[in-house]
Amino acid sequence: MSAVLFDRLVVIGAGLIGSSIARAVREKELATTVVVADRDAAVCARVRELGFAHEVTEDLAAAATGADLVIACVPVGASRAVAEQVGPCLKPGAILSDVGSVKGAVVEAMAPFVPAHAHLVPAHPVAGTEFSGPDAGFASLFENRWCIVTPPEGADEQAVDRLSGLWRAMGANVELMSAHHHDLVLAITSHVPHLIAYNIVGTAAELEETLASEVIKFSAGGFRDFTRIASSDPTMWRDVFLYNRDAVLEMLGRFTEDLTALQRAIRYGDGDALFDHFTRTRAIRRSIIELGQETAAPDFGRRAAGKPRHEQS
Amino acid sequence: MSAVLFDRLVVIGAGLIGSSIARAVREKELATTVVVADRDAAVCARVRELGFAHEVTEDLAAAATGADLVIACVPVGASRAVAEQVGPCLKPGAILSDVGSVKGAVVEAMAPFVPAHAHLVPAHPVAGTEFSGPDAGFASLFENRWCIVTPPEGADEQAVDRLSGLWRAMGANVELMSAHHHDLVLAITSHVPHLIAYNIVGTAAELEETLASEVIKFSAGGFRDFTRIASSDPTMWRDVFLYNRDAVLEMLGRFTEDLTALQRAIRYGDGDALFDHFTRTRAIRRSIIELGQETAAPDFGRRAAGKPRHEQS
Repeated sequence: MSAVLFDRLVVIGAGLIGSSIARAVREKELATTVVVADRDAAVCARVRELGFAHEVTEDLAAAATGADLVIACVPVGASRAVAEQVGPCLKPGAILSDVGSVKGAVVEAMAPFVPAHAHLVPAHPVAGTEFSGPDAGFASLFENRWCIVTPPEGADEQAVDRLSGLWRAMGANVELMSAHHHDLVLAITSHVPHLIAYNIVGTAAELEETLASEVIKFSAGGFRDFTRIASSDPTMWRDVFLYNRDAVLEMLGRFTEDLTALQRAIRYGDGDALFDHFTRTRAIRRSIIELGQETAAPDFGRRAAGKPRHEQS
Repeated sequence: MSAVLFDRLVVIGAGLIGSSIARAVREKELATTVVVADRDAAVCARVRELGFAHEVTEDLAAAATGADLVIACVPVGASRAVAEQVGPCLKPGAILSDVGSVKGAVVEAMAPFVPAHAHLVPAHPVAGTEFSGPDAGFASLFENRWCIVTPPEGADEQAVDRLSGLWRAMGANVELMSAHHHDLVLAITSHVPHLIAYNIVGTAAELEETLASEVIKFSAGGFRDFTRIASSDPTMWRDVFLYNRDAVLEMLGRFTEDLTALQRAIRYGDGDALFDHFTRTRAIRRSIIELGQETAAPDFGRRAAGKPRHEQS
């Protein structure tokens, strides 16, 4: 049913997202040639074994030469280095994109290396699991997920349309917004929740030994899901916090102020304040259900229906 | 396969937990007579319609008269009032228990009303969903969940064994510990995680209107699961925080100190500190998986396998 959208499509970085894109494009035949480039020789060897790419190489520049679309699927902090290597090789009309969870800093880092005859169209698929590496990816990861495309001012409309079309063909719902706005929205919907999860798991890890072992044993009371998020890729998340610093600090400041108020209500036994707060938060939940953004099970945005267990969990 | 363990078993409060106990006991025929007592006439009417109890009454004292086991399934703050009404009616050898998420304060509140000829054996099934009321319960809610029994010092061993046997018969794994220790463990595994979830959803609710609507739209990036927890019963959770105040404040203090350190690392761009923290938290996750306490999907301790969707979600 789908048509070939790109001739030579290059994915740089064969982690969870990169390998999922390569698999989806290959499976749906959205590109004539799917190229995976990764600087790690071991990763390249594994991708060859898995067989979801037509070409596999450690040479990013060679891969990008003649490409119609290059998607950098690397931690945000590595975007600049990728753009520096790949930019000069881009042919006229080529599109350079990425999948980073932060957009403002990425555009700033990559833009200087994109020649005038090529197009930078950053994007962020709001999808993932807590697993990493080429084995973790699967073709349906983006189905029914949002992909936020953040075209810089004056971006080529046709290039934006072509990239959006690819994401739609992989099953995603595409939304356009500015990089700045994206970073604010994601700070509160994803970055701060991840930081909090990392934090509470860290707090538990510091507990007295007996207590810590029981925390693990009785983790099902709520804690366990935090540990799941807190096992996400450390490099990726380090970069998210470093590169979306301002928005994260802003939202974290609000979070802390509000938590301090709740803490005070607990200390002074202000049951009415607690009850009011806990009642108000129900309305947000209702809105999410009404928007159809709810699934049967919580999944931190990570589960595709019908996946084998190791991919789901 | 199961035997009748109690003659007259009384559940007080037909909410999620109470109605699940009544259903499980009825379904597995663990008691000759299952009585549900609830002070709310509308709830009693609904329980009669649902038909999972042999007797339904608004009169707690009448229900408890002649009972072999009375389980208070009410918000922690209502335990005292229940014990006051029910205590004087308890026959020799009768057991009074509860299901509260806080144990120290509950024992203190209930103990004075339990006659010397009866036995107080508090318990806490670590299970639930974010739904409330008699319709929300289901018989398999406790299967493969922990039930923590916290016998007061000098508690009657036979009574503790009988109550533990009931929970095992309902599918739970039983663990004994002191009320004080229970409250510390639950503060970090359940109470603080819930408070944090309530808090971040509240923070989002205060955002500028445009931003708030997008937070809902893109909630799948992590935020959505917090909204699920934050839609739990406000009365129950108000009481948890009021009655487990000291342990919650202690754990919250540690959480905040740690979060402040992470915030500082973000502000000053200390990537190594972030990376180290995010790597350490993976070990905790591994321990949980090794203990077999992990399921395919995150569920905040709330999902029983094989349940219909509305009960699962």
